[in-house]
Amino acid sequence: MSNLFFKCINPIELNDLLKTLNFKSNETFKDTKIHDIKDLVSADKDSITFYHSKKYKDFVQSTKASYCITSENLKKDLPKSCKSIIVKNVLISTALITEKFYPNSINDDFDNDVTAIEELSFHKDTKHGNNILIGKNVKIGSNCSIGHNTLIEKNVIIGNNCNLGSNIILRNTIIKDNVSILDNCVIGKKGFGFFPIKNGNYRYPHIGLVEINDNCEIGCGATIDRGSLSNTVIGKNTFLDNQIHIAHNVKIGENCIIAGQVGIAGSSIIGKNVKIGGQAGISGHLKIGDNVEIGGGSGVIKSIPNNLKVMGYPAKEIKKFLKENR
Amino acid sequence: MSNLFFKCINPIELNDLLKTLNFKSNETFKDTKIHDIKDLVSADKDSITFYHSKKYKDFVQSTKASYCITSENLKKDLPKSCKSIIVKNVLISTALITEKFYPNSINDDFDNDVTAIEELSFHKDTKHGNNILIGKNVKIGSNCSIGHNTLIEKNVIIGNNCNLGSNIILRNTIIKDNVSILDNCVIGKKGFGFFPIKNGNYRYPHIGLVEINDNCEIGCGATIDRGSLSNTVIGKNTFLDNQIHIAHNVKIGENCIIAGQVGIAGSSIIGKNVKIGGQAGISGHLKIGDNVEIGGGSGVIKSIPNNLKVMGYPAKEIKKFLKENR
Amino acid sequence: MSNLFFKCINPIELNDLLKTLNFKSNETFKDTKIHDIKDLVSADKDSITFYHSKKYKDFVQSTKASYCITSENLKKDLPKSCKSIIVKNVLISTALITEKFYPNSINDDFDNDVTAIEELSFHKDTKHGNNILIGKNVKIGSNCSIGHNTLIEKNVIIGNNCNLGSNIILRNTIIKDNVSILDNCVIGKKGFGFFPIKNGNYRYPHIGLVEINDNCEIGCGATIDRGSLSNTVIGKNTFLDNQIHIAHNVKIGENCIIAGQVGIAGSSIIGKNVKIGGQAGISGHLKIGDNVEIGGGSGVIKSIPNNLKVMGYPAKEIKKFLKENR
Repeated sequence: MSNLFFKCINPIELNDLLKTLNFKSNETFKDTKIHDIKDLVSADKDSITFYHSKKYKDFVQSTKASYCITSENLKKDLPKSCKSIIVKNVLISTALITEKFYPNSINDDFDNDVTAIEELSFHKDTKHGNNILIGKNVKIGSNCSIGHNTLIEKNVIIGNNCNLGSNIILRNTIIKDNVSILDNCVIGKKGFGFFPIKNGNYRYPHIGLVEINDNCEIGCGATIDRGSLSNTVIGKNTFLDNQIHIAHNVKIGENCIIAGQVGIAGSSIIGKNVKIGGQAGISGHLKIGDNVEIGGGSGVIKSIPNNLKVMGYPAKEIKKFLKENR
Repeated sequence: MSNLFFKCINPIELNDLLKTLNFKSNETFKDTKIHDIKDLVSADKDSITFYHSKKYKDFVQSTKASYCITSENLKKDLPKSCKSIIVKNVLISTALITEKFYPNSINDDFDNDVTAIEELSFHKDTKHGNNILIGKNVKIGSNCSIGHNTLIEKNVIIGNNCNLGSNIILRNTIIKDNVSILDNCVIGKKGFGFFPIKNGNYRYPHIGLVEINDNCEIGCGATIDRGSLSNTVIGKNTFLDNQIHIAHNVKIGENCIIAGQVGIAGSSIIGKNVKIGGQAGISGHLKIGDNVEIGGGSGVIKSIPNNLKVMGYPAKEIKKFLKENR
Repeated sequence: MSNLFFKCINPIELNDLLKTLNFKSNETFKDTKIHDIKDLVSADKDSITFYHSKKYKDFVQSTKASYCITSENLKKDLPKSCKSIIVKNVLISTALITEKFYPNSINDDFDNDVTAIEELSFHKDTKHGNNILIGKNVKIGSNCSIGHNTLIEKNVIIGNNCNLGSNIILRNTIIKDNVSILDNCVIGKKGFGFFPIKNGNYRYPHIGLVEINDNCEIGCGATIDRGSLSNTVIGKNTFLDNQIHIAHNVKIGENCIIAGQVGIAGSSIIGKNVKIGGQAGISGHLKIGDNVEIGGGSGVIKSIPNNLKVMGYPAKEIKKFLKENR
């Protein structure tokens, strides 16, 4: 699927990409046109992909990409159909190539190309407050309400029967039906992802979106960052309380209840019917199973299988936690 | 006392209420007019009340309500003057009845019925910024200041000598004298209280208010949710730092000092002269005594008697905590 | 150096200052003019200073101040050139004197003396959104962008190539070049510092600033309070994620990376190249060395030497933490 919001500049000649990486090799690469950069799973034969950690070994073997940015020691895991491009730092090289395909995904300045909502025509039944600005490429379904001073920057699709509060900032976000977003949320900005380099940090591009599914409620002051290469997703019927932070690429399943001031770090995946108590934190790149319950204040630093109740820092089975702390 | 802000539709025939609950019984109930739904303590003989947990046994015996929503196993605790209405889920039934008495307490969409402050007449000495909107049923005392872009939605009473910052959203809130509310606070929205039901969550009504007493300071970015059946209360001279979350029905005593990023979950009661360090969290339905000190980062999961100093997660006596962690 | 933003009313006669303190002594003080109140290190011979804790013994011996507010038991540490003014509560007395020199540092009401940005002339290349208000004494460098509804109150200097998001509130802040401030930040308000007195809290004056150095990024919803007597400082190339709270007088070094929802309490000093994981908290008045790494969720209650990796609550060496929690 092509990217809904960020324009892909393509095709790009492989040799141009290699030049971007200052790539030097004894091998010669036949010049060819590359259409996109994708992760191992979604790449097709016209794509370039990347492989930077053994964790993804299961995926690499079936990738359809013709080229893969990787390192010397991982090279051997690639299928024959996929030619390796060996670099020093796989993630920085991937970021550079992504930026080349999606140059406008780097700039996250405020959206200056906005119009007062009164000058636009959405559904007649849209109820809206004062001082609302709307960017390009915004759709709003029927029977929605939008509170005062809310800013809907470019690239936002809102379904039917949605209630947006006041002082909200949205961009690069898809909201399905019957969703409530409460006051002061900031949704869809780039994530906190970058590589420390000499004299600063190199921010990698964020070409993913935020996707909020049917019947969700997002509490006041939430920050939900958009994904880097994939989307940040909030599943159907999931409710978030106030002051929650959801980092880039996080995926939360259906019917979850997440209490106030919880933070979920980048790329973690939360199952269905998960309950998370107030102020709990979940580290990045973890997998939390279905029906898991995480006690308030917990610090989760390991993945959790389905149906477990945990508490503590680091989080452990709740029975064990309570027994140890009698 | 009648509800200050949410209109009570009354009286309602008892049999109408029973129909709402799909209530079936061999007993017949004489039809009678019910005037309100109240908690066990504040109910009078024209009220219906509810009793869902042994925790409230002390209160149930002296309730003046004529009818009580309860469960089969709790029924026996009721005084003779109070007739039980046995249901499967006491809290959901209570929510349904509350919604019937207070239908307008369910909708928390942004307040569209607002007026620019320049078009209204408050005290001549009111100092105010730009882009301020005021809802119906708002009173502002003398010598107050209100910052830019602040939104005072319906049902707000502000005393004398109060300073409100900018970008604040207020509704359903009573603020007494000499109170400072700093920038970006959201005060008076419904709490994060609901019951998971098939295909979603059933939000229970919030007919309580937020009450902020004399000389308080509320730091930037605070969220203070209004109560469900009772009020959320901040006591006299209590100071809150930035980014604090106070859930519905919480009551905080006088002269408390609460540092940044603290979270207090629903219905907990905090005594007088309590000091709470930064990022500490307090679970719901707890009682924290007077003069308690809670160390920064603590996770409080049990009630704390007066005069204790605690720290840790779970919080324990600070001496014990420090000894164990030498 | 004179205070950049807060006007010092000087000189003040020493006897006037002593009257403010209700100071009584058998000693007589020759009347003399005092020019400022400063900390032990930056004071010169025309200044009054203060000394309230043994922790600062190293500094007191070389202070150049001619007068020092202190207590009976600390008096002996002063050099001969510095005359002691013995009071009951050194910090309250210091606050009273500071207020006398800087009367306008006490009032933190919203800035009413603002102008719409369209009516002002900054660099032609300034890109700005709607509904932006600017206070007195504001400078903006070239090639900056400022998002919608952002409020730049009095006393703000912004360098070149800075990007400010929307809904930001700034005051009493110096921002150097190439800095990004994301949406909803509140930067430069007074800190949460006061002394409990009878019937309330006595807030001490905040005459410090916030200083954000080159290439920093400050995430959404951050609160960074200005210093009391010294500045709050964010070092070059330091990146802050969303929902972070930085209290008054905190100093953070260069090249630090601080993840979401971290809180740093008043007057702590963080070294260079420090990494802090999400939701970690750092108590006040600590010193965190260079190259320290603090795991997500940690609670740091002691100073940390250079190059250490810590985790836990209370934070300890990460190897120890992981071993104990296997």
